[in-house]
Amino acid sequence: MEDFQSALTEREGIEQPLQVNPNLVRRKRRVLSLDDYVSGILKGDRVILSRAITLIESANPEHFDMAQSIIERCLPHSGNSLRIGITGVPGVGKSTFIEAFGKLLTGLGHKVAVLAIDPSSERTKGSILGDKTRMESLSVDPDAFIRPSPSGSTLGGVARKTRESIVLCEAAGFDVIIVETVGVGQSETVVKSMVDFFLLLMLAGAGDELQGIKRGIMEMADGLVINKADGDNKPKAVGAQAQYRMALKLFPKNESCWDVPVEVCSALEGFAIDKVWNMIQRYEALTKGNGYFEKNRTEQNVNIFYNWINFTLQNNFYNDEEKALAIERLLPLIREKKISPYMAASSLI
Amino acid sequence: MEDFQSALTEREGIEQPLQVNPNLVRRKRRVLSLDDYVSGILKGDRVILSRAITLIESANPEHFDMAQSIIERCLPHSGNSLRIGITGVPGVGKSTFIEAFGKLLTGLGHKVAVLAIDPSSERTKGSILGDKTRMESLSVDPDAFIRPSPSGSTLGGVARKTRESIVLCEAAGFDVIIVETVGVGQSETVVKSMVDFFLLLMLAGAGDELQGIKRGIMEMADGLVINKADGDNKPKAVGAQAQYRMALKLFPKNESCWDVPVEVCSALEGFAIDKVWNMIQRYEALTKGNGYFEKNRTEQNVNIFYNWINFTLQNNFYNDEEKALAIERLLPLIREKKISPYMAASSLI
Repeated sequence: MEDFQSALTEREGIEQPLQVNPNLVRRKRRVLSLDDYVSGILKGDRVILSRAITLIESANPEHFDMAQSIIERCLPHSGNSLRIGITGVPGVGKSTFIEAFGKLLTGLGHKVAVLAIDPSSERTKGSILGDKTRMESLSVDPDAFIRPSPSGSTLGGVARKTRESIVLCEAAGFDVIIVETVGVGQSETVVKSMVDFFLLLMLAGAGDELQGIKRGIMEMADGLVINKADGDNKPKAVGAQAQYRMALKLFPKNESCWDVPVEVCSALEGFAIDKVWNMIQRYEALTKGNGYFEKNRTEQNVNIFYNWINFTLQNNFYNDEEKALAIERLLPLIREKKISPYMAASSLI
Repeated sequence: MEDFQSALTEREGIEQPLQVNPNLVRRKRRVLSLDDYVSGILKGDRVILSRAITLIESANPEHFDMAQSIIERCLPHSGNSLRIGITGVPGVGKSTFIEAFGKLLTGLGHKVAVLAIDPSSERTKGSILGDKTRMESLSVDPDAFIRPSPSGSTLGGVARKTRESIVLCEAAGFDVIIVETVGVGQSETVVKSMVDFFLLLMLAGAGDELQGIKRGIMEMADGLVINKADGDNKPKAVGAQAQYRMALKLFPKNESCWDVPVEVCSALEGFAIDKVWNMIQRYEALTKGNGYFEKNRTEQNVNIFYNWINFTLQNNFYNDEEKALAIERLLPLIREKKISPYMAASSLI
């Protein structure tokens, strides 16, 4: 609700009038300066953090410059977190897992931010994390921050916004960043490109353990966890664990020199969630020791560099008023086949 | 072998010396002019078509301009084909299916081009269609043209090259274009964006009929075919057919007003391949009648327009010598964390 109001206010550029009732004043938005944003974020103010992320997600070009300035100021304070990607097919119990996992971490004194990448959220109105009630207990935890997936027409755009949100969350003192995504295709690659550890949640007994379609995702995983190991399902989960362990032996060795472990857990019953955290800590220790952790982040930064060039090129182009008018003129001609899309594009550049 | 030689010659820019032996002359490459390329393609000369596609796939900037000129000249002669995308997990029998399907079509008097999109072909050296022996009989059919997936570092780049190859194949008189891809993620979306009909090949008895991970791909399909309906497997295939039919009822209606059919076939035994062609022809008749066929192609052209703008922006940028030098200078600074990737990118534009 807070986010929604904030988004509305900022989208429409409406400033709230000053209120005399001090109880009301606290609920109203005032326009924040760059310094307000940065100092608020660095103090860990979650409302200001949330508003800054809204700026990042905004399609308004005026918000863009402010957002970039905030990111630039926050960058020196970012990077000090463990970034964990979590994926799995719908029904695997991601929300329940993240809720249990997040509570474990805040209980250990960590500050946990949960972000999401769901490229389908625009089209299907499906709401990965759109509803905070999915994580009832974590969403009211003062040491947790949950943010739904930004919407956007391209996966690249959604990814960029999430990448920038990570910077702000880290500057705000969150030391574990979880990036959630659904197990359908390219979004895993994108999440993998922005995290230190990539966790794949699976189900036992789906009978498709070694299906080719999942292999691409399995190859990316730094850890596999078979969820819903509870009740009658537990023996099946343990059986699947053995199968996956065998399967992983067939894969080429990771560059990180890490043997990808397979664990079973029950997020519902809170069983063995700590084993997952243990697994991730062992990974962190190994890869920080052998230099892979740093190397991976460096390569990710190089990718950000190229992504950012490409994004800026497009952003400058499409925000140019003259180009926008030309595109409006060309689109009907393309639709009526009076010009080829190649010719039309070439005529613009 | 022909393609390989052609690629080698053109990559290294080696011109072949003139030969006196007339038997040898025919086997040697000469430099072709734009007119040579275009008239060769329009005459349906497969060797020249193949060389033109090699130009499209080349990373050499000099080849780029020639390739674009060829495409521009071929565009008015393109579009008169039925474009069929085919996907399915490894092991589903795509090659055997395409071989049987392609032979059926050439037997009916069609000219069939088989292209492929395999974003992984670079990395894993896996060769979807890389080996023409996968389609022994089709590859020597004078009415068929088989081309392996272009390699490339980005899916977008691979897709662009395939899209342009479609234009040339159509100009060369191929009236059925098959674009094959593997069932792993985003490449389906890309193939869907360039075809009229999208066919999903499946297997019975994999036990994962209704797995969430496939739903995204199933939702894109205009037709489902359960392959390997032979021997003991046939009853299972028929059972799966019923299951898929039920499942498809749960999906929202397609914009094309087409009820997605589910067929069983055996590519190995040549059983019911004609039913698949029949299905596609019914789709063509329906969508050409209700205007969706044209509408879909128009929207695809609008997408090409935007893709081409984005590609050209990047192409111009990265081929600029000054920018290239600046990038070389910045990369070590990013790696040593002396500059943020965002700052570095911004400094270039």
